[in-house]
Amino acid sequence: MSRTILSRENPDFRHWKKLLHSARERRKAGLLVLEGVHLVRDWHTAYGAPESVLVSDRGMENAEIRACLAESCVGAKMVRLAEARFAELATTATPAGILALAPLPTRGSSPAPDRDSLLLDGIQDPGNLGTLLRTAAAAGIGQVLLSADCADVWSPKTLRAGQGAHFCLDIHAGADLVAFLRNFQGEGLATALTERAESLYAIQWRHPVAWVFGAEGQGVRPEILTAARKQVRIPMPGRMESLNVSAAAAICLFEMTRRAETTRTA
Amino acid sequence: MSRTILSRENPDFRHWKKLLHSARERRKAGLLVLEGVHLVRDWHTAYGAPESVLVSDRGMENAEIRACLAESCVGAKMVRLAEARFAELATTATPAGILALAPLPTRGSSPAPDRDSLLLDGIQDPGNLGTLLRTAAAAGIGQVLLSADCADVWSPKTLRAGQGAHFCLDIHAGADLVAFLRNFQGEGLATALTERAESLYAIQWRHPVAWVFGAEGQGVRPEILTAARKQVRIPMPGRMESLNVSAAAAICLFEMTRRAETTRTA
Repeated sequence: MSRTILSRENPDFRHWKKLLHSARERRKAGLLVLEGVHLVRDWHTAYGAPESVLVSDRGMENAEIRACLAESCVGAKMVRLAEARFAELATTATPAGILALAPLPTRGSSPAPDRDSLLLDGIQDPGNLGTLLRTAAAAGIGQVLLSADCADVWSPKTLRAGQGAHFCLDIHAGADLVAFLRNFQGEGLATALTERAESLYAIQWRHPVAWVFGAEGQGVRPEILTAARKQVRIPMPGRMESLNVSAAAAICLFEMTRRAETTRTA
Repeated sequence: MSRTILSRENPDFRHWKKLLHSARERRKAGLLVLEGVHLVRDWHTAYGAPESVLVSDRGMENAEIRACLAESCVGAKMVRLAEARFAELATTATPAGILALAPLPTRGSSPAPDRDSLLLDGIQDPGNLGTLLRTAAAAGIGQVLLSADCADVWSPKTLRAGQGAHFCLDIHAGADLVAFLRNFQGEGLATALTERAESLYAIQWRHPVAWVFGAEGQGVRPEILTAARKQVRIPMPGRMESLNVSAAAAICLFEMTRRAETTRTA
C-alpha cells in the first residue's frame, strides 16, 4: 500500500516539488497541496479523502498523523518518504510530517449577487490573504471574490494562514469586482481613508453587504470605490495612519456580527 | 561624506549583514535596523536622525529616498553601496534602497501599572507581532509587554509589520506578565475559548485595561489567565474554531475604542 521513494530524481518526487512551489504547476495539474494534519482533516470534512498523501518516516510514528491517516485519508494513495526527502518538499521550516494532494475546487457558477460577500482588491501578501479568509469564515460570510492581482489563494502559505477557511467559503478568484458590485442586490461598503467615508460606528447598511478591502498602500482602486457606492472608515484615536488590511477587515466584519448579535438579544 | 564599499569582505559590510540577520548581534551592538523610507522617517520623527544610513546606487537616484536623506538623516553617517551588495544585506525580496542603523530603545523603568496596556504571551510570528503593535498604537494604547518567548520585537520583519508603531509605544520585552497583572491598577482581560469567558459584547470593564493575547494553538498560559481575572471571548457565528491572534486583538481593541467614541458622542 505504501512505498518509500528515496531518489531526488524520481519523477513523482520532482512533480510534487513543483506543485509545492509553483502556482502555475498547481493550476496545470488542477491540484492543491495541504500541509499538516489540520488542513488534511478540514479538507476531508468538506470534500472527503484527498487524492494522495505523503508522510515522512518520523510522521509515521506520530499518533496524530496516524489518526489522520486512518480517519481522513482512506482511499488516498499513500506514499512514505525518507525524512530528508520530505523536508525538501515542505514549505515550512519545521515540516509537518504529512502533505496531501487534492483537486483544486472549481467554481463553475458565477458569484451570487444576493449573499453577504468579501471582495479583495490586490491583496498581495499570502499571510494577509489567508487571515482575511479565516476572519470572513468566522464572521459567517460565505462568499469571497478576489481581483486577478491578488496573491494565489490556493498556495500553501495562503492555505496555512486560512486554517481551513478555504473549505467553508465559495471562493471566486480572478473576479471582476466592478461588474459584481454593479449587479449586487445589497450594499457595497468599501474601506477608504477619504473625506467622504463615514465612520464604521455611524454608518447604516442593509443585508446583503459586500465588504471591499484593498491592498495596503494603494487601498481600493477608484473605479471599485465608485462601484461600491458607500465608503467607510475606522475611527482611530491613536497616532497611526492606517491599519493592516486584515486587522481592518476583522474590525469591520465583527462590527457587523456585533450588530446582528445585539439586535438578536435586544 | 559618503563612500562606496564594494568588497564582501569589508568588516563594516560583514557587521551590517550580521545585524540584519541575527537578534543576538543586534542586542550585542545595541542597534536595530530600519529598512525603507517609511521606517527611517518614523524613527526620525520619534528620536531624531539614525546613527548610519546605507543607500544603494539606485536608491541614490530615487526622489523619495533623497528627500528622506535630506529631511531625516542629517547627522547620520552616510554610506553608499553597489546595488548587488545592498541586495545581499536586505531582508526583503525587493530591497527598499535604504537601510539605517539606530540605537535599540532602552526602557530603564518598569511598566506603569496604571496605563491601558497590551500583554502578549508567546507570540512567535514576527508578522503577527508587528501587526499587533500597529493595531495597539492605532487604538491609542501606549504600553506593550511581551513575555520572554515572543519573537524578537526589534527584528526587521517585526519592525516592517509594525509600520512605525514601535516608535509610538513603550515596549517592555521579556516582561513578567503574571507579576504585572498582580500589581495592575485596573482590569486584566484575557481572550480565551473557555466556558468561563464572557462575550466581548456583554462584558464590562473600567480603565485602565490590560488586554492579554496568547500564542495561536496554545492560547494564554493558565497562570496568566488566572492573574488576568477576567476572560473574554469573541462570539463567532461562522464555522471556524478560532481567529488569527492579530485579528482577535483588532476586534477587541476596537470594541474598546468604539465604546469610548459612542460614549463621547452620546
